[in-house]
Amino acid sequence: MPDQDQNSIGVALSGSTVRAGLVDEAGNIIDRREAKIAPENLVEQVATIARDLASIAPVSSIGIAIPGLVNRQTDSVVTSRFPSTVGGNLHAEFMRATGLRVEIENDANAAAYGEFKVGAGSGSRDMFYMMIGEGIGGAIILNGKLWTGSSGFAGEVGHITIDTEGLECVCGNTGCLETVASAPSIVRRARERLNRDSTSSLSRLGLKRNFTAFDVAQQAKEGDDFALMMIERTGKYIGTGVASVINLLNIERIVLGGGVMDAGSLILNPIIHEAKRRAFLSCFEATEIVAAKLGWDAVPIGVALLARNAADV
Amino acid sequence: MPDQDQNSIGVALSGSTVRAGLVDEAGNIIDRREAKIAPENLVEQVATIARDLASIAPVSSIGIAIPGLVNRQTDSVVTSRFPSTVGGNLHAEFMRATGLRVEIENDANAAAYGEFKVGAGSGSRDMFYMMIGEGIGGAIILNGKLWTGSSGFAGEVGHITIDTEGLECVCGNTGCLETVASAPSIVRRARERLNRDSTSSLSRLGLKRNFTAFDVAQQAKEGDDFALMMIERTGKYIGTGVASVINLLNIERIVLGGGVMDAGSLILNPIIHEAKRRAFLSCFEATEIVAAKLGWDAVPIGVALLARNAADV
Repeated sequence: MPDQDQNSIGVALSGSTVRAGLVDEAGNIIDRREAKIAPENLVEQVATIARDLASIAPVSSIGIAIPGLVNRQTDSVVTSRFPSTVGGNLHAEFMRATGLRVEIENDANAAAYGEFKVGAGSGSRDMFYMMIGEGIGGAIILNGKLWTGSSGFAGEVGHITIDTEGLECVCGNTGCLETVASAPSIVRRARERLNRDSTSSLSRLGLKRNFTAFDVAQQAKEGDDFALMMIERTGKYIGTGVASVINLLNIERIVLGGGVMDAGSLILNPIIHEAKRRAFLSCFEATEIVAAKLGWDAVPIGVALLARNAADV
Repeated sequence: MPDQDQNSIGVALSGSTVRAGLVDEAGNIIDRREAKIAPENLVEQVATIARDLASIAPVSSIGIAIPGLVNRQTDSVVTSRFPSTVGGNLHAEFMRATGLRVEIENDANAAAYGEFKVGAGSGSRDMFYMMIGEGIGGAIILNGKLWTGSSGFAGEVGHITIDTEGLECVCGNTGCLETVASAPSIVRRARERLNRDSTSSLSRLGLKRNFTAFDVAQQAKEGDDFALMMIERTGKYIGTGVASVINLLNIERIVLGGGVMDAGSLILNPIIHEAKRRAFLSCFEATEIVAAKLGWDAVPIGVALLARNAADV
């Protein structure tokens, strides 16, 4: 009979979806559930999924990852891309509804921990994680532990300024990395370019009115020059941020995940090239820059392991 | 009779000067020496000063701070603004010449440790230090210890990119913070501006052919509008870098030192203003941004305490 401390539930909340996994001590997902999010009834929805998964194997903790800032001192959600009904003291609400020990964590922190434990970060001691998707998040692992800063917010690499006079960002700043390297920014730049040059024969993208960053990456993979240029340009921007992380942290390994990295080597190569061009060579050479391995599973696996490990303390 | 482990010698090397202090366990400078650097004979020069200071009170360790990257794994100097005769395995040479335990450290790391132990970082647990002078260096203290990264280079905040299309930097990158916020960049920007508008009545600076960043700060203190604008602009740039550090590290305290900070509140206020404008408010509010307290003494004090503490391990 499995020890109930060996399994934990990991829940990844996004703007639209709840993805949950029953995760064993080695970071394997034993079973999983996925549902459209019910913002008005989120806590009960998560509790129902948790009861369902806990009927498969006993668990005593649940980790919940959200796309927002979590204050680790107060365990409260500070800001989030979330429906406004979600916020405040989620910790207490989830604990009451599930009867389990609860850890709430930023989704990039969760994914970082998952990759560190059983993914592309394995074998490293210090690791920086970047999650490049709808937004750009990040997380820092030092000496094998998540380093979340004074109040839990560390790692917000999407909001370092790479262009003092750049575009306005959702965070209020201008010229953040996120304004030019997130998935929506790829679409915006591609659209702007196609508007300027509507006769361009370079691209099939213009034929689709509502193309996504995923479409751009697909077209690039199929050899479309214009789409490829958009992906490479994005890689250059990400590489600029990566170089700043390298110079600031001299970190052993940088793991790049999130939807934008689905473009594979088409984006990884320009990232590495630009990082090498911009970082101190001695720092660059001390850093491995690699793609994440776990995909979407990084978040539920990571947050489940964080919840489990918190229980050990 | 003082225990010989209680005192240590701290030596700060710059491009032109050797400054050394005999430092007690509490970080007080008991006695000090200063000399013009003799690049062709540096090791012997330092050894002579060390013998002189060691005749005042017994010491068993010496810390040597240099303006360059020190590889902590090999204890060798990787790059430096130093005379080219200095480099390679300084560690072994200094040990042979002084007969003392030797620690070699980057000067920003040394200053950070000094400020952390007995200066503006006192009472904090996590601290970021920026040294803004001829160049811009930085250092990270986490959980009370210098965090130097995988190979000793962490903290190079002067070489994060704040303008992807910016000026070329000495490091090879373009648009580094250092290109717009170091002492030489203040002079360059002021000169460019005066060249464009030679009839400007705003400034007395144009009357001096070879003014320095110190002169600009002095004129600003005396109420010169043009000089004040130059200092404020510099503060905005530094604040941009500070905001990136805040978002990336969510660090408890940021200590700002180096010659450029001699402008006092004239530069500190715009730094804080810009950092607030650019950083996540939750992160900004979790950070104290303060001026360094120890001035030039931070380096010898810090490197002496690092050498002493290394001996404890």
